Amino acid sequence: MRLSELSAETGVSTASLKFYLRESLLEPGVPRTRTQADYGPAHVERVRLIRALVESGGLSLAQVRRVIDALDSPTVPRHELLGVAQDALADGTAYDEDPDWTATAVAFVEHRDWRIRDGDVLLPQLGSQLKALAETCDVGSTSTLDRWADAAEGIAAGDLDTLTDDDEQALRTAIVGTVLSDRVLQTLRRLAQQNLTATLLERATEAERQTNRPGPDSLR
Amino acid sequence: MRLSELSAETGVSTASLKFYLRESLLEPGVPRTRTQADYGPAHVERVRLIRALVESGGLSLAQVRRVIDALDSPTVPRHELLGVAQDALADGTAYDEDPDWTATAVAFVEHRDWRIRDGDVLLPQLGSQLKALAETCDVGSTSTLDRWADAAEGIAAGDLDTLTDDDEQALRTAIVGTVLSDRVLQTLRRLAQQNLTATLLERATEAERQTNRPGPDSLR
Repeated sequence: MRLSELSAETGVSTASLKFYLRESLLEPGVPRTRTQADYGPAHVERVRLIRALVESGGLSLAQVRRVIDALDSPTVPRHELLGVAQDALADGTAYDEDPDWTATAVAFVEHRDWRIRDGDVLLPQLGSQLKALAETCDVGSTSTLDRWADAAEGIAAGDLDTLTDDDEQALRTAIVGTVLSDRVLQTLRRLAQQNLTATLLERATEAERQTNRPGPDSLR
Repeated sequence: MRLSELSAETGVSTASLKFYLRESLLEPGVPRTRTQADYGPAHVERVRLIRALVESGGLSLAQVRRVIDALDSPTVPRHELLGVAQDALADGTAYDEDPDWTATAVAFVEHRDWRIRDGDVLLPQLGSQLKALAETCDVGSTSTLDRWADAAEGIAAGDLDTLTDDDEQALRTAIVGTVLSDRVLQTLRRLAQQNLTATLLERATEAERQTNRPGPDSLR
């Protein structure tokens, strides 16, 4: 298909497609004439992937490039899949490493009996996030962290199950699944907050109604 | 304190502080001389908040501005706190709304018995995220979504508990706590993945060792 057809098929503008081509995120098509090239199903798939990572995943161009590079690399052993996915998704933020808070993060991980690579970048990252939480809104007691860690364990167990299902798609699932489902989880958390708020508000209103209007009304 | 002292106290460069002042994210200090102003504890707190939202929370400047505006607005009723927080944190992405996938999101929310505001922007957002997951890596069965929704419910219950603890800080906690803890959860999920991978790998290696080397070795 031509570039305009690739655009129609994927819903991505030709301007964006040309940008992907210039940035080598998308392989060139097979030349047809001096100004036209031919694109196939692999291009459709790649364009959908880039769009999903940028639009739904909120990744930067640099992160998309690392993901694409990881996907294009030779097969990665299964037990390294999530490590490669994590490295590709590292957000590149220069975390202001605070040794005391890194130690807090390490202590929490030990408290959970989690085995983490020594010197993993995730530990100072967690420390910096906990510091920010503590400094700005006094949230982050061990009981709160434990509740979050319980949730994270449940989700991670599912992540690994997904990986054992399908061999060919495993790395793609590890990377794309993780970044997109991070977003899905954020959305689900907000929806669950709304539901709980609605429930609590209804209970409060009901309690008030019963207090303020005793008599026949409360029997309805 | 002077601007340079505010910089030393918060670890934010004077160039960034001047940027915050120009963008009205930070209130001007009290003028001391024609070129100097005086900054107090409220400035320290505000600068820490901005830095936490930008660095640890990964918010855009437009989002930080909405958060600051929400925090500076008059007291919000408690049951509206999370709604205001959610609106302030809306990521402004123009989701490519797909009616079929929005319907899938609505059906899932009904399946969970969650009560959501009619026409809430989160529903097409969830639909678009589920579409991206399905198109790129074939993840998102109802059982996977249910596992994530279980985790989200557990976290949201904790979010609401936090809000009942402290009245004055409630909105700040609702907003800042949600955005920062989204990041903490992402980090915890990756750590939990590492731990599970290490455990699975060890089991696989152990099983292989026992299969390949029967005899005295396996008794060690």
